[in-house]
Amino acid sequence: MEYDRNNVFARILRGELPCTRVYEDAHVLAFRDIRPQAPTHVVLIPKGEYVSVDDFAAHASAEEQAAFVRAIAIVAKSEGVAEGGYRVLSNHGAAAHQEVPHFHLHLFGGRDLGAMLPRRAERG
Amino acid sequence: MEYDRNNVFARILRGELPCTRVYEDAHVLAFRDIRPQAPTHVVLIPKGEYVSVDDFAAHASAEEQAAFVRAIAIVAKSEGVAEGGYRVLSNHGAAAHQEVPHFHLHLFGGRDLGAMLPRRAERG
Repeated sequence: MEYDRNNVFARILRGELPCTRVYEDAHVLAFRDIRPQAPTHVVLIPKGEYVSVDDFAAHASAEEQAAFVRAIAIVAKSEGVAEGGYRVLSNHGAAAHQEVPHFHLHLFGGRDLGAMLPRRAERG
Repeated sequence: MEYDRNNVFARILRGELPCTRVYEDAHVLAFRDIRPQAPTHVVLIPKGEYVSVDDFAAHASAEEQAAFVRAIAIVAKSEGVAEGGYRVLSNHGAAAHQEVPHFHLHLFGGRDLGAMLPRRAERG
């Protein structure tokens, strides 16, 4: 899949759309999901143009990859969910309902997060 | 939380318990989940002793962190789910029902994966 420079996260990175930022460094931006599914629901994205984790793994530098891992821990702490528990989740492609074609990771916390997957393939 | 050297993944890494290996390199081991929730359900773990992604972010080398990111893409391709889509997910602490106190990431694919979170906090 080619990177679409008009995807919503590209536009947030360019400052064309607003976001509620929770963390930023040279390689990563983290902001609140506009349709939160838990008391803490933050989206983490690399600043580079990567469609998927495949793309991020193949084309990002080790420094960008390590910065992304570190950002997860920083956000979990700053959101106060590192102790109580949190889930990180990233969707790729149609089977997982990836909605924005810029690699992103959801971080959820602040409530009991329940099962990892719906038992059946329900949307919702 | 202190690292427990007798957790089940530590025992798999030491070869004391069997696993069905799908990928291994100097820093990462990936194997099939023994209770699969999707046609593809692989667990990826770093070989180092890290309880959580916080711990992995704070104490693993950038090389280990980058290797872990790359392993996700390698497994998605070798499992044949990179095209159709897949979800990666990692649970930390009680709210997310982390079951084994060694940082691990689930990779799911091969079916429609549905919603990201249960709407209510149901276990299952």
